Amino acid sequence: MPIAEPGAGPTEIAAARLIVDLGAIAGNFRLIAKRAAPAAVGVAVKADAYGLGMARVGPALHDAGARVFFVAWLEEGIALRHLLPEAEIFCLNGVAPGAADAYAAHRLMPILGSLEEIDEWRAAGHGGKAPAGLQIDSGMARLGLSAEEVDQLVADRQRLDGLNLTLVMSHLSCGDDPADPLNLAQRASFERDRGRLGLVSIRSSLAASGGSFQGLDFLLDLVRPGAALYGLAPLMGQANLMAQVVRLQAKILQVRRVDRGMTVGYGATHRTTRPSRLATLSTGYADGYFRSLSNRGHAYLGPVRVPVVGRVSMDLLTLDVTDAPPELARRGAWVDLIGPHHTVDDLAAEAGTIGYEILTALGARYARHYLPADGKAGAAT
Amino acid sequence: MPIAEPGAGPTEIAAARLIVDLGAIAGNFRLIAKRAAPAAVGVAVKADAYGLGMARVGPALHDAGARVFFVAWLEEGIALRHLLPEAEIFCLNGVAPGAADAYAAHRLMPILGSLEEIDEWRAAGHGGKAPAGLQIDSGMARLGLSAEEVDQLVADRQRLDGLNLTLVMSHLSCGDDPADPLNLAQRASFERDRGRLGLVSIRSSLAASGGSFQGLDFLLDLVRPGAALYGLAPLMGQANLMAQVVRLQAKILQVRRVDRGMTVGYGATHRTTRPSRLATLSTGYADGYFRSLSNRGHAYLGPVRVPVVGRVSMDLLTLDVTDAPPELARRGAWVDLIGPHHTVDDLAAEAGTIGYEILTALGARYARHYLPADGKAGAAT
Repeated sequence: MPIAEPGAGPTEIAAARLIVDLGAIAGNFRLIAKRAAPAAVGVAVKADAYGLGMARVGPALHDAGARVFFVAWLEEGIALRHLLPEAEIFCLNGVAPGAADAYAAHRLMPILGSLEEIDEWRAAGHGGKAPAGLQIDSGMARLGLSAEEVDQLVADRQRLDGLNLTLVMSHLSCGDDPADPLNLAQRASFERDRGRLGLVSIRSSLAASGGSFQGLDFLLDLVRPGAALYGLAPLMGQANLMAQVVRLQAKILQVRRVDRGMTVGYGATHRTTRPSRLATLSTGYADGYFRSLSNRGHAYLGPVRVPVVGRVSMDLLTLDVTDAPPELARRGAWVDLIGPHHTVDDLAAEAGTIGYEILTALGARYARHYLPADGKAGAAT
Repeated sequence: MPIAEPGAGPTEIAAARLIVDLGAIAGNFRLIAKRAAPAAVGVAVKADAYGLGMARVGPALHDAGARVFFVAWLEEGIALRHLLPEAEIFCLNGVAPGAADAYAAHRLMPILGSLEEIDEWRAAGHGGKAPAGLQIDSGMARLGLSAEEVDQLVADRQRLDGLNLTLVMSHLSCGDDPADPLNLAQRASFERDRGRLGLVSIRSSLAASGGSFQGLDFLLDLVRPGAALYGLAPLMGQANLMAQVVRLQAKILQVRRVDRGMTVGYGATHRTTRPSRLATLSTGYADGYFRSLSNRGHAYLGPVRVPVVGRVSMDLLTLDVTDAPPELARRGAWVDLIGPHHTVDDLAAEAGTIGYEILTALGARYARHYLPADGKAGAAT
């Protein structure tokens, strides 16, 4: 689904802009909610809503019906609490060492992930009162109770008794690949541990974006998508049902004609093989347009695909626009770095990474435009 | 030179922190100024002072004696103008299309880089009054007058007459490699074009960080280092004379013991080959700790080097701390991701990129501490 450009208004002086379609995010939320029902949908807005701006994305998701939110850091939870006074907010990274009181003060629920965290939460006096979540590891070895800790807790069950647990969760390591046998193994491990710990009556969650599309057995009580809300494909190698959310555009600063044999950019890694026209844009790796896109990325002038040539520099990149019509390849024209013809996932493949990293790296210099969720601005497409 | 930790104070609740030594930046400025004299030193503070915070770095460099500053975007120049009312500020990316008036209003000097920009600047009425710079390309094919445009200007010299030029510059494509013959070729091209255009009496600049260390012939009137100020090695394959500026630390959230054969992280790309202890930190690729560091990066617990295992995730990374003493590898301990034993350049090599991209990607969630330039806090090392 193409994303509209912002409506005509004062002349845009920014040399590059990021357009975020809040309506598309709301639509993606509703699509997941419909497929997951009767499971509830909690939304991941950590990492500044995957780089798109939690201050705008959080309230838009709340307007669309989301009531459960996931962040990673304490500081993100505090910021979200100011935006959404009544939401349920979980902090996935658990209790930061020594910071238990701050969670309770802002009614944030840390996802406790180790015996030490459980003990720290209880020692701070919050065990019996302030709600919290619990994570059991089932194959990530990252956060959550290890197998050894589950055994210890089963043998010493009263360590959990004083806690006010509102969620018990685990996390899939290969959730984007339904064919991977680890998914079923992790689900079985999670179910077994919940049973051994006597936690089967507590709200449960296993699936993030990928798992939300893996079938009913993975939905449990609550799914917690992030990437899919923001338009990334939830499953590898399958058609992407999600609406695109992001459009990233930069203005052409100048177009130069050069002879055959001209070197381009740092290290002279590109050499023209014909008389060429090169366009320079005010976007570089300091803006999250990864240096790994040097000589590999592509952009679009309208429908015309053009390659990045030479190394991406800190504040600039260069395109070979020899094959684009001059009326598109001119000073002041907007170029799509991410857009209708080139998704976040497409750019990620060129950069040798995943769409998640493209989103969270989006830079601070872009002028940011938010298309409202009521669809009016979106209708100008 | 090791960077001190911030002094004792209120308990740090942040799960990761970035320490920027303003004294080291000032010292690096003075070192370059001494070597470059009588050439002047203009400082590059674009891209938020290479990710370190222009609002703090800009005034610290001014205190150290810098009077000429380089940014890339118009918006950066406006922000710097508010910080430094009297500084000379050049905008390297030239005149953003349609925005000429904004530069003049804030006494910013765009580096004009094409005939179109020259004409746009004059058409806005600023040619004869508001000062500006001029860039001549000598081998980057990125910004600056092309060979064809220089020919046109030589034939039509009055197009320049109305301009108030205060700087004429070019940019080296291989400035970090003194052995590359392109350096001498670019210098010769720049000198020839300056002569043909009748601009030899105007302040001139060719060298950025690398060129500043390439010998007297490259210094001209003004050098404009960026990376070297921030501690990166200015020349490839040579000892780094610059003081380290950055220390990046994250707290251990939890340490888990796992059996042999345990898979770690997304995609299960790492499997333990012995009973192991794994430490999880609240830092991930959303914080600029690149995903390309998965199974490749290293960190330090005090003097002990430990490897990143598994994929770096958005908000977390995992270290194998089996070989570190338990008193160092414990919940709450600080780990150096960048520090005395592991420079920005070291981390960049592990990530498959350059230190510049590591710096400009430094994330927004870190608690930021600035060690003052008077050296007091630094003395606590």
